[in-house]
Amino acid sequence: MKIGIVGLGLIGGSLGIDLRSQGHQITGISRQETTCKTAIAKGIVDRASTKFDLLQDLELMIVCTPISAIASTIKQIIPHLNTDTIITDVGSVKSPIVKECSQLWSNFIGGHPMAGTAESGIEAAQANLFTGAAYVFTPTEQTKPENIAKLKAIALDLNAVPYICDAQIHDRAVSYISHLPVMISASLIQACLQEPPDTLQLAQILASSGFRDTSRVGGGNPELGVMMAKYNRTELLRSLYSYRDNLDEIIDLIEAESWDSLAGVLKVNGEERSKFLN
Amino acid sequence: MKIGIVGLGLIGGSLGIDLRSQGHQITGISRQETTCKTAIAKGIVDRASTKFDLLQDLELMIVCTPISAIASTIKQIIPHLNTDTIITDVGSVKSPIVKECSQLWSNFIGGHPMAGTAESGIEAAQANLFTGAAYVFTPTEQTKPENIAKLKAIALDLNAVPYICDAQIHDRAVSYISHLPVMISASLIQACLQEPPDTLQLAQILASSGFRDTSRVGGGNPELGVMMAKYNRTELLRSLYSYRDNLDEIIDLIEAESWDSLAGVLKVNGEERSKFLN
Repeated sequence: MKIGIVGLGLIGGSLGIDLRSQGHQITGISRQETTCKTAIAKGIVDRASTKFDLLQDLELMIVCTPISAIASTIKQIIPHLNTDTIITDVGSVKSPIVKECSQLWSNFIGGHPMAGTAESGIEAAQANLFTGAAYVFTPTEQTKPENIAKLKAIALDLNAVPYICDAQIHDRAVSYISHLPVMISASLIQACLQEPPDTLQLAQILASSGFRDTSRVGGGNPELGVMMAKYNRTELLRSLYSYRDNLDEIIDLIEAESWDSLAGVLKVNGEERSKFLN
Repeated sequence: MKIGIVGLGLIGGSLGIDLRSQGHQITGISRQETTCKTAIAKGIVDRASTKFDLLQDLELMIVCTPISAIASTIKQIIPHLNTDTIITDVGSVKSPIVKECSQLWSNFIGGHPMAGTAESGIEAAQANLFTGAAYVFTPTEQTKPENIAKLKAIALDLNAVPYICDAQIHDRAVSYISHLPVMISASLIQACLQEPPDTLQLAQILASSGFRDTSRVGGGNPELGVMMAKYNRTELLRSLYSYRDNLDEIIDLIEAESWDSLAGVLKVNGEERSKFLN
């Protein structure tokens, strides 16, 4: 398949490596001339350009820019595409992107490969990044079945596991397992920082694995946290309200000294948590 | 020093191994005859008994029972002790224990060695469990300075780092770094479980390291979670109220789309979190 990749960072570059190794012909697009040269030199793409003049005849265009640039990038590339080229993206939020981009291009299908590392940029691109990872696609009622089939095949070429679901269900699930944890973890650090110096200093000395794990995602990249909140605001707020209700229930149980009920809640949690660990 | 240890489980047994290797003479007390035999056979203690008739002439008595049994154990052993024997415990909550036990025995000093493993029982006892760990002591105004000095020396014999602080400050700090994380982590799992099947199942499929880490302590031992809440109820509730206020502030920022302020909060968190990682 002739595949274009716009945005040659960690995700775009890693897609290029694996898809090219499967025999696909990869055209890379980057704003930076040096990135194009690196991509060619590393064998990540067959050819690369800072311009959009290589995009005719592509069957699939994968937009790997940050979320905030997806729609504007699509506006720039569509004059250069065949009308039956499929466009997909790799953004971690789907509803707002699918809503906007489906209106720009009828053959747009939202995508989200659930893989990454702490690194970024083309130097961080690596083979087999998507092996065993979930790759979610969020078609609409207008999506052609043959286009979904092509994207599923691409996911399988990456040794990823394709999942098809509604964009809103995706955003809701991702909020619970990724965006909500960031905010509740951040609130823990924030609460500690409100304490007077004697308590705060002792807490810093005594903190071990429990605090380290629970606070980890709340101490991560601030820009990424804001991006999640901005683009998945509706579902994140919904999950935060539900979370606050559940927290209040636990507070109520402790206030009422309902130890058997608290034990029951914690027991169910322990049993159910294993279903989230793959 | 002649040291008695009541309760030969993971902590009591591990204390015996290290203190005996430093030349202290260790007398072990357990309710189980088989545990006494195992402790002697493994070289954890010099001698052991299910009775309290070996406790005269001890300089230090370390009570390593579960929190709920500390005061009742002390009541049982004090008829057998010299009046200047120091009693300390290893409970993870200090204020209620110090309050009750100081009235039972004037030479009582609360203690909390911050070490452990997921295992329990004498078979799990190991050498060097306390190496590098904090060992907190919580004297009162009535505590004799020479008794604190003796306990500090014991901590150093274990290669642990002794800290002296007020019992309430200990309980407050421990709530923030250990007990509060359990409750906010449990609330995350609980909130997920309220979702309809389609969202819940997708969340289970997509969950990765962020969810795994943030939910870990909330999915732990229910009895331990209840014990924390029961014995550190006042400080845990206090930290939960502060946590809820901080969570509400983050919710407010997202509702108001105050992205710069949210970025500011997350940035400070990331910077400050490193101070909790030893």
